Amino acid sequence: VTDGRPTRAGRGRRPGSADTRLLILVAARGAFADRGFDGATVRDVAARAGVDPALVLHYFGSKQALFVAAMQFPVDLQAMVRRLLGGPVDEIGERYVRFVLDIWDDPATRSVMLGIVRSATTDPVAAAMLRRIVSEGPVLTLAAALDRPDATLRATLAGSQVVGLIMVRYVIGVEPLASAAEDVLVRTLGATIQHYLTGDLGPGASGTSSATP
Amino acid sequence: VTDGRPTRAGRGRRPGSADTRLLILVAARGAFADRGFDGATVRDVAARAGVDPALVLHYFGSKQALFVAAMQFPVDLQAMVRRLLGGPVDEIGERYVRFVLDIWDDPATRSVMLGIVRSATTDPVAAAMLRRIVSEGPVLTLAAALDRPDATLRATLAGSQVVGLIMVRYVIGVEPLASAAEDVLVRTLGATIQHYLTGDLGPGASGTSSATP
Repeated sequence: VTDGRPTRAGRGRRPGSADTRLLILVAARGAFADRGFDGATVRDVAARAGVDPALVLHYFGSKQALFVAAMQFPVDLQAMVRRLLGGPVDEIGERYVRFVLDIWDDPATRSVMLGIVRSATTDPVAAAMLRRIVSEGPVLTLAAALDRPDATLRATLAGSQVVGLIMVRYVIGVEPLASAAEDVLVRTLGATIQHYLTGDLGPGASGTSSATP
Repeated sequence: VTDGRPTRAGRGRRPGSADTRLLILVAARGAFADRGFDGATVRDVAARAGVDPALVLHYFGSKQALFVAAMQFPVDLQAMVRRLLGGPVDEIGERYVRFVLDIWDDPATRSVMLGIVRSATTDPVAAAMLRRIVSEGPVLTLAAALDRPDATLRATLAGSQVVGLIMVRYVIGVEPLASAAEDVLVRTLGATIQHYLTGDLGPGASGTSSATP
């Protein structure tokens, strides 16, 4: 049964605009993760995505351009920082958690993010990407903007709670966190992020401790 | 150069007691993770570990016994609960973080734990294992023993912060958290765990919210 439109010859799936592009990007992340930029080929990526190699080039032009696109973080991080800073400072933790939940509840960004997190545990490229997001990304900008001591420690502490939320709620799916209502998460985790970003972390937070012998 | 003791013929590594056993266990986790119990063979496991299949059977007796051993959590969780409950309740968060750091700073348990966490992002068996640790393991026992409402939510919130710490400090290695002094982590993360386990999580923490339309 066809819908009357011309069908595409070949073994692969038919092109489906945004979905196909995303499919190729996810395949490309996997291929680059497994073999690195030099080892992975357009043919590999096409095979993983179940499409014709010509379609990969149609969407991305070249292997180099495909690589750059595959490594793009699928969220406007500057917008995130603006959104987080545009409101009461004492509610920044709650806004932060709400922002994370919005990203993960959107199917388009969720699948890409899942790909990054899943790859990050075994692949150095994806790990570097996640490392950059956690330590040098918007959270650091945010932490620095709040003008507290130990901005990088604060940023990575907040990042650790967010990464943990993502792992437990979305990747491994632990109940009741996996299906907890958004406002419960915003309140409970928001208080933690708020403490990390603006609270008193105690003496020696910068990591130079004299307490241990 | 040999040390005078009888050497073992064959292509694989020579048996080295605890290290070899651990090597086989890690290989078995990978094999069972990739192919499931039915699909994975003792030969697969031996090949991954770089040892002779006979050595696998020497250490574990059968594929069934190997599977059970591979799925064993490498830490005495009952001892963990006793240790965490054996002290002031208002320092339970700090004891919890110190316990986690002790596990991860011990090379023997660390490599096994790394295997579980790395597998958990892509493999259902390892994910189920991590899920059980986070939601049904000692943390839940602990949360229940503290006799607060929402024990499972408290347990998984604490688990999410610990999983995030592990990901950021040990798996992807984000500075300054990756090399932060233990007492800094115990204080900053301990306060969070303490709040999750014994603090006031606010109204509607059980997840049935009337705030959203």
